[in-house]
Amino acid sequence: MNALLLIAHGSRRTASNDEVIRLAERIRNFSSGEFDIVLPAFLEIAEPGIATDAKRCVELGAKLVTIIPYFLSAGRHVVEDIPDALKRAQDRFPGVRFELKPHIGAAEAMADMVLNIARSTNRRYG
Amino acid sequence: MNALLLIAHGSRRTASNDEVIRLAERIRNFSSGEFDIVLPAFLEIAEPGIATDAKRCVELGAKLVTIIPYFLSAGRHVVEDIPDALKRAQDRFPGVRFELKPHIGAAEAMADMVLNIARSTNRRYG
Repeated sequence: MNALLLIAHGSRRTASNDEVIRLAERIRNFSSGEFDIVLPAFLEIAEPGIATDAKRCVELGAKLVTIIPYFLSAGRHVVEDIPDALKRAQDRFPGVRFELKPHIGAAEAMADMVLNIARSTNRRYG
Repeated sequence: MNALLLIAHGSRRTASNDEVIRLAERIRNFSSGEFDIVLPAFLEIAEPGIATDAKRCVELGAKLVTIIPYFLSAGRHVVEDIPDALKRAQDRFPGVRFELKPHIGAAEAMADMVLNIARSTNRRYG
């Protein structure tokens, strides 16, 4: 059983948190069963937090929990806070593997994705 | 002559702004001449701002300036501040078309990109 945690900062705007929740649902639908569990987690302000989600993954039977920081830059949250939270989860659940991936801003594919948005006919807020 | 502006929030951390600057360079390299000019712009804190970049694009001969908000959620910056700044640029340079695209968090391709990061063997900050 594989789980994926999408970790966002968390916002006072409910709509922003909802965007992350919907993205996690889309990822689960697109993953074709590769990830049985896909959960959004929030570092601050919003719930659930990382500890809550990690516990939930373990209770649901996950043996591997892959973590993606949904952040554009490698600031303190990405470099310190998320790894610290994961270390606590790993210490608490030694039988489960927690694997932290690079933040999305570091993805090789980002340049291509921006270009595709630029090419799209979609126009908004203009 | 086509230009692309990648508009980020701007950070007190130079390294975060540098990530945006490097991404803009990568986009230009990947665009195969589709965009002659690709510039990073910052909404707050860092320079250059949108007005400076818009002027620069016009001076360099751009007839179309495509704008991508490098933001994950549709908060006030995406929904109000960036469109306001673009309206000012459009009023100032009526002979040039400024076209605002959706913020990157709204991209259909985001779910796929997150899945690809999750599948990668890359492991960081762990």
